[in-house]
Amino acid sequence: MPAETVKRKLAELGLTLPEVTRPLAAYVPARRSGSLVFISGQLPLKDGVLLATGAMRPGRELSEVQAAMGQCFLNGLAAAGLVCDPDEIAGVVKLNAYVASAPDYFEHHLVANGASELAQKIFGDCGVHARAAVGVAALPLNATVELEILFTLSE
Amino acid sequence: MPAETVKRKLAELGLTLPEVTRPLAAYVPARRSGSLVFISGQLPLKDGVLLATGAMRPGRELSEVQAAMGQCFLNGLAAAGLVCDPDEIAGVVKLNAYVASAPDYFEHHLVANGASELAQKIFGDCGVHARAAVGVAALPLNATVELEILFTLSE
Amino acid sequence: MPAETVKRKLAELGLTLPEVTRPLAAYVPARRSGSLVFISGQLPLKDGVLLATGAMRPGRELSEVQAAMGQCFLNGLAAAGLVCDPDEIAGVVKLNAYVASAPDYFEHHLVANGASELAQKIFGDCGVHARAAVGVAALPLNATVELEILFTLSE
Repeated sequence: MPAETVKRKLAELGLTLPEVTRPLAAYVPARRSGSLVFISGQLPLKDGVLLATGAMRPGRELSEVQAAMGQCFLNGLAAAGLVCDPDEIAGVVKLNAYVASAPDYFEHHLVANGASELAQKIFGDCGVHARAAVGVAALPLNATVELEILFTLSE
Repeated sequence: MPAETVKRKLAELGLTLPEVTRPLAAYVPARRSGSLVFISGQLPLKDGVLLATGAMRPGRELSEVQAAMGQCFLNGLAAAGLVCDPDEIAGVVKLNAYVASAPDYFEHHLVANGASELAQKIFGDCGVHARAAVGVAALPLNATVELEILFTLSE
Repeated sequence: MPAETVKRKLAELGLTLPEVTRPLAAYVPARRSGSLVFISGQLPLKDGVLLATGAMRPGRELSEVQAAMGQCFLNGLAAAGLVCDPDEIAGVVKLNAYVASAPDYFEHHLVANGASELAQKIFGDCGVHARAAVGVAALPLNATVELEILFTLSE
């Protein structure tokens, strides 16, 4: 990321990268292939607790679920640190935002903004990404949101 | 795309690329990384109106929803034009077709053909792609379908 | 894959790659782009029969659905053989595991382990991948699981 480091930007925003616990299963939080870094689907865990559980439905408070999406992004950025230095990250390429959703909830894009806006706050112009947001039936551990991230190290 | 330009093929098929409105949010319709072009999840918007809303369920007319998937592909191709000339596109690598679906609807692959067949009509052999089609709980704005596209500029 | 071939490892595990039938539709089971091989969403078909149908729900036996996920992985590995020699595969980059899910089922990650563990058995350290697992409303042909795979040929 040119001009300004990711670490400095996080400090400015008052954010710190969480510890990443390597899963014991046969998958990893982050996998590099060439200049791409693929991040596993991140749940909104903070200090071991899910920030949001249960499906989104009309009338449910949006801001807490957007914050949960932001936490997913932060967790994913921390996971990237397992395969590269965060300051090596040249940009955010794509986000896939999965929102556990009642069949009559239709604002998944607003939920996803919680991750997209944080990406831009941290990475500036390099944080602008392609994105898909969909409403799914349910997520692991009854999380309300899950986020997949694709970073690029150089282009 | 060798031999024949995308623009000429679109004209032959009587298709024109829609205008793309850049979203004001912190994401973009298309993001290039190396020779790959990642297209954000496209809804079946045509002239500002969704071509299909509500979930697929057994007995619902298939052809209009296939047409909506085709519109998603066309919108995604237009979005690619923000980061490259459409004639630079060397092929379609992958489609992810999301279909808002009742729990007892099982023909998401037929819906997805609406995009796959248009990809092949426009790009010929270069339009042949990998694909996943799944049924989701709900989609933004109550759209029936959403399509993610991965193009390649050269290989 | 260094040191040990995929084919030899499959033989050791008593596994054989299934025949791949090329779909007649406008998509293909596997698409190569540079050093990446994108595998279409695989259903748990074995000898033309789905190993698991219907949604996961609390109390449903996990092991048969994990086995179905393993079959998806095996089918995807066979599909890769259409665009490369399986022994050229340098690693598994990412899995996207889709689980047809009742709204109150929350262990999609355990289902996905059926694919992740097989990836590691076959590829060893090179089989360790990023992964997302989500619960969807329904899948084509009423399959319980669908798996997308991203392989890399060299890095």
